[in-house]
This record gives sequence, C-alpha cells and structure tokens, in this order.
Amino acid sequence: MFWAVALAAPAFAQTDPLPSWNAGHAKARVVAFVTAVVEPGGKHYVPPGERIATFDNDGTLWAEQPMYFQFMFMLDRVKALAPQHPEWKSQEPFASVLKGDIKAALGGGERAVEEIMMATHAGMTTDAFEQTVKEWMATARHPVTRRPYTEMVYQPMLELLGYLRANGFKTYITSGGGVEFMRPWTEKVYGIPPEQVIGSSIRTKYEVRDGKPELVRLPEIDFIDDKAGKPVGIHKFIGKRPIAAFGNSDGDFQMLEWVTSALGPRLGLIVRHDDAEREFAYDRKSHIGRLDRALDEAGPRGWTVVSMKDDWKVIFAPPR
Amino acid sequence: MFWAVALAAPAFAQTDPLPSWNAGHAKARVVAFVTAVVEPGGKHYVPPGERIATFDNDGTLWAEQPMYFQFMFMLDRVKALAPQHPEWKSQEPFASVLKGDIKAALGGGERAVEEIMMATHAGMTTDAFEQTVKEWMATARHPVTRRPYTEMVYQPMLELLGYLRANGFKTYITSGGGVEFMRPWTEKVYGIPPEQVIGSSIRTKYEVRDGKPELVRLPEIDFIDDKAGKPVGIHKFIGKRPIAAFGNSDGDFQMLEWVTSALGPRLGLIVRHDDAEREFAYDRKSHIGRLDRALDEAGPRGWTVVSMKDDWKVIFAPPR
Repeated sequence: MFWAVALAAPAFAQTDPLPSWNAGHAKARVVAFVTAVVEPGGKHYVPPGERIATFDNDGTLWAEQPMYFQFMFMLDRVKALAPQHPEWKSQEPFASVLKGDIKAALGGGERAVEEIMMATHAGMTTDAFEQTVKEWMATARHPVTRRPYTEMVYQPMLELLGYLRANGFKTYITSGGGVEFMRPWTEKVYGIPPEQVIGSSIRTKYEVRDGKPELVRLPEIDFIDDKAGKPVGIHKFIGKRPIAAFGNSDGDFQMLEWVTSALGPRLGLIVRHDDAEREFAYDRKSHIGRLDRALDEAGPRGWTVVSMKDDWKVIFAPPR
Repeated sequence: MFWAVALAAPAFAQTDPLPSWNAGHAKARVVAFVTAVVEPGGKHYVPPGERIATFDNDGTLWAEQPMYFQFMFMLDRVKALAPQHPEWKSQEPFASVLKGDIKAALGGGERAVEEIMMATHAGMTTDAFEQTVKEWMATARHPVTRRPYTEMVYQPMLELLGYLRANGFKTYITSGGGVEFMRPWTEKVYGIPPEQVIGSSIRTKYEVRDGKPELVRLPEIDFIDDKAGKPVGIHKFIGKRPIAAFGNSDGDFQMLEWVTSALGPRLGLIVRHDDAEREFAYDRKSHIGRLDRALDEAGPRGWTVVSMKDDWKVIFAPPR
C-alpha cells in the first residue's frame, strides 16, 4: 500500500508514539492506518464517533500463561473460602484444588471449572465481589515472575491504546474473561473505564435487603464473550462496528472477521507469542490462547501479525 | 437545602441553561445539583468519570401516548409484512391487527404482544432491522399530532441533556423499549450515541453467509430493561452507579431507588404528565406509564417531581 507508507512518514518525523515497537511492517501498518483515518478530508477519513477499537485482554493486553489469571483468582478464592465450606475437603473438584492438585481438579472438564467458577464468583453482592477482586489484585503475585498481575501487561500495547485514544479512538476490551473481574482495575491499568469493558458475565438480581438496594450475583451464566460471542457482545454493548480489532488467538477470530470484513479502512492485528525468553512461546497446540486458524488466515485476510520477539523492544510495562 | 439555593445563583446570573423551564423548585433543584457536583474542591464535587446520568425514554424524553411508539412501529410492520404472510389473514393476533382492531389483537394479552413483536423484530439481520427503523422514523406520523415521532420529544429534556453534558456528564438512555429500535436515531435526536443506549433486547447470532459475516436477530428474549431490570441493565452496561436518574413511571422506580440510595450527591427526577391541554394527563390509572408508587414515595425519597404543566414553558421541540 503506497499511501500507507507515504502517510506514515509525518508521524514518525515528529515524536514516535510507539517507542517500544521496533521499526517494521507491524508498526508501519498501525501508524499508517491511524494516520489515514484521522486525516480531515482524506480518502480514508473516519469521523471520531466511529473510531472504535476493540481489544481482547488475555494474551493481547496482559499475559495468560501458565494459566488465565482469573483461573488463579478462582483457585485462591477456593482456598480463602474453604473454612466456610468444610464439605469441600471431600468434595470434588474442590478437594483436589485444596490439595494443590489442579490437574485432578480439572479432570471433571468444563463442568468442574464451571462449578469452581460459580462457587467463587456468585452468591455475593456486586460491591462485595468488586472489593474481593481489588484486594486480590493488590496482593496476588504471578507464579513465575512474582510480579503483581496488573504489571503483567504489555508495554507496547499500553502505548498502542494511548496512541489510538490520542487520535480520537474509543478503546474497548472484549474479553472471554469475566466483566466484573476486569472492571475494578482496567481504568487504572489500561485507561479503559468500566463502561468500555465487555466480557463474559453471570446474571445479577436486584434486591432490597433491610431497605438497602443491592445487586446479587447469581450462579447462572448470562453471556459468554468468546469466539462468535465477541461480535454479538460488540453489537450488544456498543451498537457499532469497530474499525480496528486486536487479538491473539482463535477466540478472537470472529471479532477480527466481523471488524475487518466491512467496507472502509480496517485494521486487524494479532499478537503472536513467539518469545520464550522474555515471555512465553505458544500457538497451534496450546490449550490456552490457541492460535491456529487465525494464523493461517491472517495473510489472506490482511491481518497484521505482531511478533513479540521481533516487533517489541520490551514486553512488560515497568513497575508502577 | 440552603447550599442548593446559594450555589444555584451564579449559574442563573450568566446564561440560563434551561430556558424552557419555568423558575421553580424543579429547575432550582436541577441547577443546584449540577452546580454542586462540578465545583472543584467543593463538598459535593464528583469527578467527571462518575458523572453518569440515566434517562428513561418513553414518557421521559419523548411521548408515549396513545400507545408506545414502538408498538405503533410493530403494527405498521405487520401491515408491511402481510403480503409475505398470507396466513396472517386468518391467524390471530395478526388478523385483528390487519383489520385495524387493536383491542381484539391485544385480547391475547402479553403472549399476543410477544408474538407480534417477534414476527416483526426478529428473523432479519441487525443491519436490515436498523434500515427498517430508520425508514419508518423518516415517514411515520403520530396519530394525534401528525408529527414525526422524533419530533415528539420534550424540549425541556433536550435542554437538560445538553446542560448535563456541558457539565461533564455522560448521558445514557435506560428504556424498557428495544435497544435496536432506539439506537438508529438517538444520537441525532438526543445527542446520545448507540453505546450509551440501554434497552430491552432479543438475542442475536453471528453467522457467515456466503462469506459475509452477519448478525441475525433471533425470536428469543435476551433482556428486559424495566423495573428491577433497570439497575441490572445499568450495572451490566455501565458498571458504575449513576448519580442522577430521570423517569416518569413506576417502571423507573428501582432505577431511581438504586441511584438515589447511594451516598453522596444524588438527583432523582420524575416527569409528571399533568398537562392534558399541551400533551396528555395520566398517572395512577394509566395502562401506559403508570405512575403510582413512585409518586407516593417521591416526597420521602427526595425525588423531584416535575409538573409538565407548571414547570415547562413548552413541551415539544420545534420542527427541525
């Protein structure tokens, strides 16, 4: 694309908006896209209200290995709640979790995960759950790096979020993770306020207890924001088709497809985990963040594949 | 409240932000609230990110008599779709709708309404439905005033929306009406973009048809944004507790309760339809927009009741 390279030049000439990105195709593509859509009167101009960008979270904005961080939260909650549930000592999958045998706990498959999820994510008010998430985020540490989970975020992606917002984009999270697990900290960490976080959810119920209104979290799934659920969630919560989407796995395929198949300038980008030294390396065979079909189709569909190894100068954000 | 009156003065001294509102308690209360929450360092200061205001739509921002406007749309759609459904001629509730006998059509109660709703609101793509709504809005006329429905909006409420936004508020719609019936026109009419419209919804499904991704509307209820559903919807879509809520009926009771029972400065306001001459007069006995419990409890709960007759200089916005 000649115009892309040509338009990118002025932005570089001033201040580099993406200092943690190495020069290369990925960075040039991002800058060319942004420069083109903001140019008043330009052929590819997009008005600010339509500059919507959606980001997957796990593996795209922060790490997801060796396990989804929300899964770590779940396991910690089982341990914290165990004194109130003496029956868990002999009841699977809880008994195995309490013994530290995660593999055995997961022997029950999706049903086991859902059982642990509901036991730790439902039954309390939304306020109480928010408080629990905040406390956990403030104290829990990643098992490999020993850093707080909120520091396991990718510096180049933080720059990208800021760069898009500085150019009039509204940035959204569209994650398979729980929306109420993310909202308590996304504004501080990513600059994304609660109302711009879309995720999976369980139902809530409005109740007035002793004259005090509360929202209570029920053990029933409301919405799964993954795969074909992502375009559905985007439409449900935003009601507009984004012009840019960012993901890292086949769970983001339909979001990328939905966003980039519309007319007009579109950006689809995949973060590829190929840096075993500085982060983790995994793709087609991984049980978490599997990247297979989306990697095959990235080329023909014009999606930009970012190599964490080659395209990023640093991986994680510095400690706050 | 002494501070309220004292703080209100400077705003009036400059330009009246609510020219269609008569001086009185309701206007003073609104201005005092806004003035207080935006005062930097003030006792009641609220940071911009928390300045969330939620508005019911039917009967609060636009009229709802003699029938909800979406219901009029539904009836018109039955007529428009009838040639494709020859069986409707002898099948209730459609047969009665086609004969113009609405009362008979509604004899089937909620089930009849839901049947008409699904027949007219589901089965097409979201893009096609949006187009249908836009075309109807451009051509349909209110049965009493003969004005386009988008002109049946309340001028004083448009001023209130603008006044709040000028003071850093994010304004949302939280309506029992269909979210996809509202989103195509709320930005133009109210200045409220699609992503700030919360409403009732049916499920959608992501499909790729002949290589083209589409969202198809399914005949299944997803969410009812009314009564106790309003705080649930607010939490689901915004993830924050608003500081101001505006309604007109008992369907808004729980939203008003949820918003005004939290600590800190809060504004709850009810639009009362008491102007038979310029609009409609109805409250406790009405089948649409019944205002009964919320009217009784407005006083004790500190909610401001706006008399359309006494508080508003004009009712409807001028033609565009």
